[in-house]
Amino acid sequence: MKILGIDPGIGITGFGLIETSSRASARALDFGVITTTMNAPLPGRLKELYDSLQEVFKSTKPDVVSIEKLFFSKNITTGIAVAEARGLVLLTASQRDIPIYEYTPNEIKKTLTGYGSAKKPQMQEMVRLHLNLEKKPRPDDAADALAAAITHSLMTMV
Amino acid sequence: MKILGIDPGIGITGFGLIETSSRASARALDFGVITTTMNAPLPGRLKELYDSLQEVFKSTKPDVVSIEKLFFSKNITTGIAVAEARGLVLLTASQRDIPIYEYTPNEIKKTLTGYGSAKKPQMQEMVRLHLNLEKKPRPDDAADALAAAITHSLMTMV
Repeated sequence: MKILGIDPGIGITGFGLIETSSRASARALDFGVITTTMNAPLPGRLKELYDSLQEVFKSTKPDVVSIEKLFFSKNITTGIAVAEARGLVLLTASQRDIPIYEYTPNEIKKTLTGYGSAKKPQMQEMVRLHLNLEKKPRPDDAADALAAAITHSLMTMV
Repeated sequence: MKILGIDPGIGITGFGLIETSSRASARALDFGVITTTMNAPLPGRLKELYDSLQEVFKSTKPDVVSIEKLFFSKNITTGIAVAEARGLVLLTASQRDIPIYEYTPNEIKKTLTGYGSAKKPQMQEMVRLHLNLEKKPRPDDAADALAAAITHSLMTMV
């Protein structure tokens, strides 16, 4: 099964595609980030993101999408923009009839490391180990997307 | 100039198209609401909304879009869904190179009634008078969308 993890944002959206057939085995097929033009007006950035998402879905052909559940703990203005970006991810998956699963940040941390307050470097190291990569995946947003994808496989597979 | 006001939401999105050539004259060309399937999963509702927005933009052919600025004063969970819907409105306008203007709820109230804490019935009455309609436009979401469109004309035209 091909799982596409996505970490949405207006400026940077991470994505990570894993292939997995059981809890124990998973490999990274592709990961990276979509960026939009900094300081450009929001509607144009949303269009850039939408167009790039179409490309990512077309090239990765995921069976399911896994995404982090949105919380507004930090900054509400940033949160609005993230929600707008997130809406485009849900739209793109829905246009292709691809099921979407969402997990809270806590669920993702706990599933990967065993505890819900794990720090970013620990998370990235677990992503690296689980996917048997030589180095931690970069940038952070791609690693976060891979973490969401891995979480879905660990939460659902035998 | 044709101004399309939009009041975005996951369940109900109001729209209202006005034609105006000066501050003093404006008429409603079209208004109504887009609804999505209640209790259906969010991604599917976003797809319904996106498809309907394409239709509305195609049939109304606006020169500009006017939209209420988003605030999270009430319910943050609802706010996330509204932001996701709002992202689709911004995307749809951007895909057609149509400029978007946004106004705070206060600006809209103040522009239409003269004071920023106007109540909904007063707002609707001012929309009716300004557009020379026999009755208040219904439903509320369509009236709100018309209010956003009128605000843009009053804020920008001579």
